[in-house]
Amino acid sequence: MKKKNKKINAAILIIGNEILSGRTSDKNIAFISNWLNSKCGISVGEARIIQDKEKIIIENILILSKKFNYVFTTGGIGPTHDDITAISISKAFKVKYEYHKEAYEILEKYYGKVKFNDGRKKMAKMPRGARLIYNPSSAAPGFITKNVLSLPGVPSILNSMIENCKRYLIKGSKVYSKTINLYTVESNISKELGLIQKKYNKFVDIGSYPFFRLGKIGVALVTRSTSLSKLKNVDKDLLKLVKLKKIEILKI
Amino acid sequence: MKKKNKKINAAILIIGNEILSGRTSDKNIAFISNWLNSKCGISVGEARIIQDKEKIIIENILILSKKFNYVFTTGGIGPTHDDITAISISKAFKVKYEYHKEAYEILEKYYGKVKFNDGRKKMAKMPRGARLIYNPSSAAPGFITKNVLSLPGVPSILNSMIENCKRYLIKGSKVYSKTINLYTVESNISKELGLIQKKYNKFVDIGSYPFFRLGKIGVALVTRSTSLSKLKNVDKDLLKLVKLKKIEILKI
Repeated sequence: MKKKNKKINAAILIIGNEILSGRTSDKNIAFISNWLNSKCGISVGEARIIQDKEKIIIENILILSKKFNYVFTTGGIGPTHDDITAISISKAFKVKYEYHKEAYEILEKYYGKVKFNDGRKKMAKMPRGARLIYNPSSAAPGFITKNVLSLPGVPSILNSMIENCKRYLIKGSKVYSKTINLYTVESNISKELGLIQKKYNKFVDIGSYPFFRLGKIGVALVTRSTSLSKLKNVDKDLLKLVKLKKIEILKI
Repeated sequence: MKKKNKKINAAILIIGNEILSGRTSDKNIAFISNWLNSKCGISVGEARIIQDKEKIIIENILILSKKFNYVFTTGGIGPTHDDITAISISKAFKVKYEYHKEAYEILEKYYGKVKFNDGRKKMAKMPRGARLIYNPSSAAPGFITKNVLSLPGVPSILNSMIENCKRYLIKGSKVYSKTINLYTVESNISKELGLIQKKYNKFVDIGSYPFFRLGKIGVALVTRSTSLSKLKNVDKDLLKLVKLKKIEILKI
């Protein structure tokens, strides 16, 4: 029998100066998190964006891999000098950094023997014992080392590889979520909302997020729970509050 | 006389389950980082996205405020039950969580005495000794506690407040940056690029970022330095490499 309420969590570690400098907006956190939530019942507990410096990568790999069931890294697995994710993970886990036989063969076949230069060969170097995450777009595979899954930083390539992570993950309980969009302001409902959250404290998380749409101010109430019945009960309470306060619901 | 090469850094702490769950894509990291870089000569060394849980916020505030010159928090300063940034910072720094007189007056004036309910009053509660970051869009001020600047999560409001942070920040040396976009693949230039990086090791950071544009693959080479002359030298070396390899430059 399946264990009830199995909570599995993950951290996301974005490795790359281009995100920290503001040059590029990160798209991978939302993508990975949505995929983990909807396909694997895994919730993301923390995300970090760090510089591509060996010492910093090692430190973060060690902390997050202890704290969470899985760590997803993105970036730093290409052929250039600033791609140091694989060697840093090797050092973090004190395993050899060496050619992965299958990765080497995949890349050699993809580029052809003549064009398989040093930079390209570097993409076959991984921590000893790593298993591959296949890449249907551009050959160079990602890899999993212990509980750390390493993916590339380019969103379109990462997206094409994500399904190949599934085989390495234990699924958690599905988290159900519902959103009600209201034309009101947070401070109009904050007191009652606090009471409803208190009532369902351990079972349902209620988030309140202001939005602007078509020049009008609104609040999105997002409820999340592994229990569908508890979620429905919260929903009833929220709708009672909406009726009482004569708030308009925005249907989208 | 101004000190040469004054390095000032900051961390960004995004507080909010909606970003971690993938429901909302973060826009604040890139915005704050670009502003700090271009207007203040401050570089962002790390960004974290965390859950809105008191214990977690306290832990991260303590770690990051020690490690960096400044910490920017976003989110969790509104009127609802999940807005716990101010009380968490108070606990982190062991100072009283109480009404800020000026913030209280601003909010009371904005809402009017009758409509100034408990939720709205909550937005005037801050760590003792906090100084205000004025909010030209929606009145509720942000605040600075020691070296921690707390801003709201809604990007349009945050953006309208950012200039009001300046008075609390010490400026660092300007970081110059240049981007060359090339129609090539990373593995074609990785070896030579590594040598150029080695040559300018301490003075210039060279980042290499693949891109796709109009169906063509390219690489953006981004160089960053506090020395404009060193940046120009690297630039010359890069252009030599481009010429040698007969690579087309993409002008944008």
